[in-house]
Amino acid sequence: MTLENVSSNKVFGGWLKQYNHHSDTVNCQMRFAIYLPPQAATQKVPVLYWLSGLTCTDENVMQKSGIQRIAAELGIAIVAPDTSPRGESVADDSEGAYDFGLGAGFYVNATQAPFNTHYQMYDYVVNELPELIEQHFPVSQQRSISGHSMGGHGAISIGLKNPQRYQSISAFSPICNPINCPWGQKAFNGYLGTDKQDWLEYDSTELMKLTQASVPMLVDQGSDDSFLAEQLKPQTLIDVAKEQEYPLTLRMQEGYDHSYYFISSFIEDHLRFHAKYL
Amino acid sequence: MTLENVSSNKVFGGWLKQYNHHSDTVNCQMRFAIYLPPQAATQKVPVLYWLSGLTCTDENVMQKSGIQRIAAELGIAIVAPDTSPRGESVADDSEGAYDFGLGAGFYVNATQAPFNTHYQMYDYVVNELPELIEQHFPVSQQRSISGHSMGGHGAISIGLKNPQRYQSISAFSPICNPINCPWGQKAFNGYLGTDKQDWLEYDSTELMKLTQASVPMLVDQGSDDSFLAEQLKPQTLIDVAKEQEYPLTLRMQEGYDHSYYFISSFIEDHLRFHAKYL
Repeated sequence: MTLENVSSNKVFGGWLKQYNHHSDTVNCQMRFAIYLPPQAATQKVPVLYWLSGLTCTDENVMQKSGIQRIAAELGIAIVAPDTSPRGESVADDSEGAYDFGLGAGFYVNATQAPFNTHYQMYDYVVNELPELIEQHFPVSQQRSISGHSMGGHGAISIGLKNPQRYQSISAFSPICNPINCPWGQKAFNGYLGTDKQDWLEYDSTELMKLTQASVPMLVDQGSDDSFLAEQLKPQTLIDVAKEQEYPLTLRMQEGYDHSYYFISSFIEDHLRFHAKYL
Repeated sequence: MTLENVSSNKVFGGWLKQYNHHSDTVNCQMRFAIYLPPQAATQKVPVLYWLSGLTCTDENVMQKSGIQRIAAELGIAIVAPDTSPRGESVADDSEGAYDFGLGAGFYVNATQAPFNTHYQMYDYVVNELPELIEQHFPVSQQRSISGHSMGGHGAISIGLKNPQRYQSISAFSPICNPINCPWGQKAFNGYLGTDKQDWLEYDSTELMKLTQASVPMLVDQGSDDSFLAEQLKPQTLIDVAKEQEYPLTLRMQEGYDHSYYFISSFIEDHLRFHAKYL
């Protein structure tokens, strides 16, 4: 597998790099970003995977969250994939909407044409990308996963489905119950089809009902997030966690919204949380 | 003077807000951003003015530098103006180049038509904006000034010309000697005309030769900055500071470039530096 380095910036003594590569899983060229903390120059470091939200790329978390400062202190690499396949051959929302298609892969394996050709983001994130990272960079197989909004849904659902692969899970403003909100219903209908039974395996709330594992989980949610009531529904996750005695800490942060300003305010807590398990 | 609030985000317990207002100085609508740290809810706080570089707006430093974290800790407000007048009536570079006209006001008062109608960024930053800020927000008259690249030139030249108005000066990757580099020569020629005598009053190196004051100054420069040799020329400033025994600390930071990743890595040092004097 060939990686093409497309950018390189020194940040907090470590290196942020972007790479292009051909993905067999999503069947097109993909870009990801990796932040290697200073410790990676002399030893293998654990990895936090960050899944971004609707409309984002690998760049948002690296430019706006301030994550490198704490990653450099704690010696954790950060890997950020794109949020969907890209390119002229990749099908998009029929009206170019922001919440489906390009920039909105929802971290599922699409079964419906024409999306099933490229939209295999679940397999890309869970299997191909970590394999690539662990082959090419000085990292251990200690992994944790985090994300924002659609990427919070991705982090929680992927973490719950793969407890052996991740030491800890966190999320900011996650879509907690996609089968019961407009963003999730549109995406799952388009990628997975109309049989709602097929949706359950990607719904964090449903997955938590079934899991036997207990990977530690931290969620932060802003109380003034304009998507809170209609799209995010954290209470459904809180309720199931309580029933299941799942180790979830969900913090409602007063006055914060859905933006990266919110994320930047609490990203340090998330990295220190993950560092306890990595 | 009416301020129109256009955005509001909670960040690190304080509030980032953007405002539009009519500026009499630059004769058009201007936008600025202000970060009010948590302390501003109960007391007047000092202000650090941040001047951005070519192509930037008020948003770059607020989104990419991580400045709010330290401003919140130290109780300092951050004010970021735009980098030029904007709007359909505002003259731009004849070829739409990034280094002159819109997004490239260079913090001077233009004397040459058609730019003299709006490009009065020096007066805007030194007089109108602080007056507005001190009238509308819970801030003291303690001010410091910082900036990046073109904005580093702005911060140093404005600070040296107004030692009574600023407690401390800092810059990242400043254009230190604009009269002797392509960016500065193009801008000064266009805004100030062909008489190079008129350029001297905006050149940081020339101003430092003449100043009687000694406002403390911190400059960080990346050693791998692609603009270092041709455009930035920090050695000219170092040489004059040495001759004049000016209190300049200029740090060459190994391996860093011209980006906000560099700024984010050292912004904490700059805020702690300013806090000593504010």
